[in-house]
Amino acid sequence: MENGILRNVKGTKDFMPQEQMQRNRIRRTLESVFEAYGCKPLDTPMIQYYELLASKYGGGEEILKEVYRLSDQGERELGLRYDLTVPLAKVIGMNPEMRMPFKRYEIGKVFRDGPVKTGRFREFIQCDVDIVGTSSMLAEAELISMAFAAFEKLGLEVYIEVNNRKLLSGVLQELGVPSERAGDVILSLDKLEKIGVGGVQDDLRERNVEETIVAAITSFVQSGGLTLELLAKRFSSSPLVQEGAAELRQLFAYIKGAGVSGDVRFTPFLARGLGIYTGTVYEIFLQDNSITSSIGGGGRYDEIIGRFLGDGRVYPAVGISFGLDVILAALTMTPSVQEERAADVLVVPLGTEAVSLALANQLRASGMKVELDLSGKRLKKALDYANKEQIPFVLIYGENEVNSGNVVIRDMRQGIEQTMPLDTVLQWLESVL
Amino acid sequence: MENGILRNVKGTKDFMPQEQMQRNRIRRTLESVFEAYGCKPLDTPMIQYYELLASKYGGGEEILKEVYRLSDQGERELGLRYDLTVPLAKVIGMNPEMRMPFKRYEIGKVFRDGPVKTGRFREFIQCDVDIVGTSSMLAEAELISMAFAAFEKLGLEVYIEVNNRKLLSGVLQELGVPSERAGDVILSLDKLEKIGVGGVQDDLRERNVEETIVAAITSFVQSGGLTLELLAKRFSSSPLVQEGAAELRQLFAYIKGAGVSGDVRFTPFLARGLGIYTGTVYEIFLQDNSITSSIGGGGRYDEIIGRFLGDGRVYPAVGISFGLDVILAALTMTPSVQEERAADVLVVPLGTEAVSLALANQLRASGMKVELDLSGKRLKKALDYANKEQIPFVLIYGENEVNSGNVVIRDMRQGIEQTMPLDTVLQWLESVL
Repeated sequence: MENGILRNVKGTKDFMPQEQMQRNRIRRTLESVFEAYGCKPLDTPMIQYYELLASKYGGGEEILKEVYRLSDQGERELGLRYDLTVPLAKVIGMNPEMRMPFKRYEIGKVFRDGPVKTGRFREFIQCDVDIVGTSSMLAEAELISMAFAAFEKLGLEVYIEVNNRKLLSGVLQELGVPSERAGDVILSLDKLEKIGVGGVQDDLRERNVEETIVAAITSFVQSGGLTLELLAKRFSSSPLVQEGAAELRQLFAYIKGAGVSGDVRFTPFLARGLGIYTGTVYEIFLQDNSITSSIGGGGRYDEIIGRFLGDGRVYPAVGISFGLDVILAALTMTPSVQEERAADVLVVPLGTEAVSLALANQLRASGMKVELDLSGKRLKKALDYANKEQIPFVLIYGENEVNSGNVVIRDMRQGIEQTMPLDTVLQWLESVL
Repeated sequence: MENGILRNVKGTKDFMPQEQMQRNRIRRTLESVFEAYGCKPLDTPMIQYYELLASKYGGGEEILKEVYRLSDQGERELGLRYDLTVPLAKVIGMNPEMRMPFKRYEIGKVFRDGPVKTGRFREFIQCDVDIVGTSSMLAEAELISMAFAAFEKLGLEVYIEVNNRKLLSGVLQELGVPSERAGDVILSLDKLEKIGVGGVQDDLRERNVEETIVAAITSFVQSGGLTLELLAKRFSSSPLVQEGAAELRQLFAYIKGAGVSGDVRFTPFLARGLGIYTGTVYEIFLQDNSITSSIGGGGRYDEIIGRFLGDGRVYPAVGISFGLDVILAALTMTPSVQEERAADVLVVPLGTEAVSLALANQLRASGMKVELDLSGKRLKKALDYANKEQIPFVLIYGENEVNSGNVVIRDMRQGIEQTMPLDTVLQWLESVL
């Protein structure tokens, strides 16, 4: 084979053991927290009908350009899923008898043939939790509480920015932004924290937004004191503002009343794009800002599933999504997070293969990760291997040891060797590991 | 949307929560056993260069017809991986400094645009463990020991058929089968247990194998007493038979000497196709034969990676593969295996949302799976839901209870309700769950 084909496709990578152990830990942590919250797992196919993915209530034009298309021997027109929401809507449409609210999680690969940046791949793992079938703000409170629980378990300190799209739309209406301009203004304001007031002004002008509106927005943003209650008071005549504010009040009351410990910040310009959200929106950020983009987010999208299915029913829904690899990146930068090790113990047989396998199996049965040296290496090489792989203990099992009922234990970190009766090894290792 | 597109592509399916919970349990069990054996996880991309997949030391013509092809916006010719072995070989080729032996596992989806049968999908999960870089039979012994450990943990009784391709080839040589006929004869004999001696004769004749060979094979198969030692004695002049027999003896000695408890059966006609195996081969079957096909298998393929990479180096390798969904099917037929439940406790707030979320969170923190009723349902409906979802305990938390510091617990299986001080609930639930 020419070496030219020994490479990965642009936007994909191999996750080698050290990284993949961390990813497995993240996945298992998320799964256990999702399940503690009573969420049920779902697994949907990666290959879907293109027509389904291209449905106009799916991801829209922008995302369609990024769909990998393919066909099968039956000449079906297919595509690789680009998110986990369209497959969820499909499952709901195919299972009309499903009990609501339906609280599901799915962790799986999605595919987007789009621009590649650091940490942004063309096939990547999404971790989504969605609750379909309830309008109660208690659902949002659950998801936000769950997010704090997940990141606490992962060892990452986060804060969550929260807003409400009704509130935001109502405020813009009251500021005199005509509805056909609201989209542009929302997208500009969404970047306020990144680009500042001046940046928003430039951005609005680039979008050809009228100067009167630019001025109104600027003066509003600079007016300060944009708390929920001040906004509600200032725009007391706007039903949209009042509805959004009431939802946020309810949500904050649930979070506070439940004693959820976590840093929740009302952020009046947060929008999360134009696409699908109809009410609450939220984004999760690292407290230390070592990664400035959000490491998760979501919101309420009460209209999408119903429009997508077109069955005349209403499916209020709220979701949250975590990016596995951005969490991996965050953990990699956190010094307190330990490297995972692939093995606790290396058993080195010196002409004693069968009984060494027996010894390894005995330790494995009590939950240790045990590597058996299969290479027939000289002892020195085996110790070298244990060093490089950061395996803390090596059991050396030669014929002398077998005959005398002993085993030699080497503590690799301290460089100390001791001989110990075989039947005490398990207990000793359990006490030090 | 027309309902016509609310369907899955042929050969794919949605795994709904009840099945997916079982699949998660299988995956986690396999991962924990693989890791106990010191195997390291790897995650390779699903999208690969088509040229890599089509390399002539990959899966061969038959499998190439089943590769899903696609391209990206950069007009690269791509395909979806059809196994986990080609990506492993690629990783080894791309990382020449990797420490050997390399013991990795990968659990992930592979794609084959081939015939669909019950339990055979076009996208399915493979669970592979491979050890690259050692010729020692201790590697095979480890994998077989690991397979027994995995199925014991899963609650399935299995036996493992073992053979050696050198032994089989040597025997056929000695029986006068010319080398250009060996492939046909191996494929026929591989089906002996399924189709019997008569079936093998018919199959050989369909392949236009000469009558003299058919007669020799028939008489050999019917001669009985085909133990390893009798074969080794009978074909004592064949170096291939002797080499294969010596490898098997070594392997059986390791397994026996290590005290691996498991039903290992020498099966002299087992071949596992013609493709890649060069030495030991094995297949795993259910003891109760409720599924007659194998539920896992593998073997030694010492030449493939080296030929694939073409770098002049030798990469002795041995692997084992488990089919997640065939294990799911086996478990589904095993009455002793309990259904997984999505939640241990349902908390029903009656106008007490915030403190109910607090109560739910307290139970979750101690490891319980807790669903909080988000629907604002009447109590009767909530109890009905708990019944259908088989949630064993319901906590009813109304304002009276909150004021008096109590909570009502309903045991759904016994239909008994009792009022209990809030601060004893956690302990009580821990004692009964």
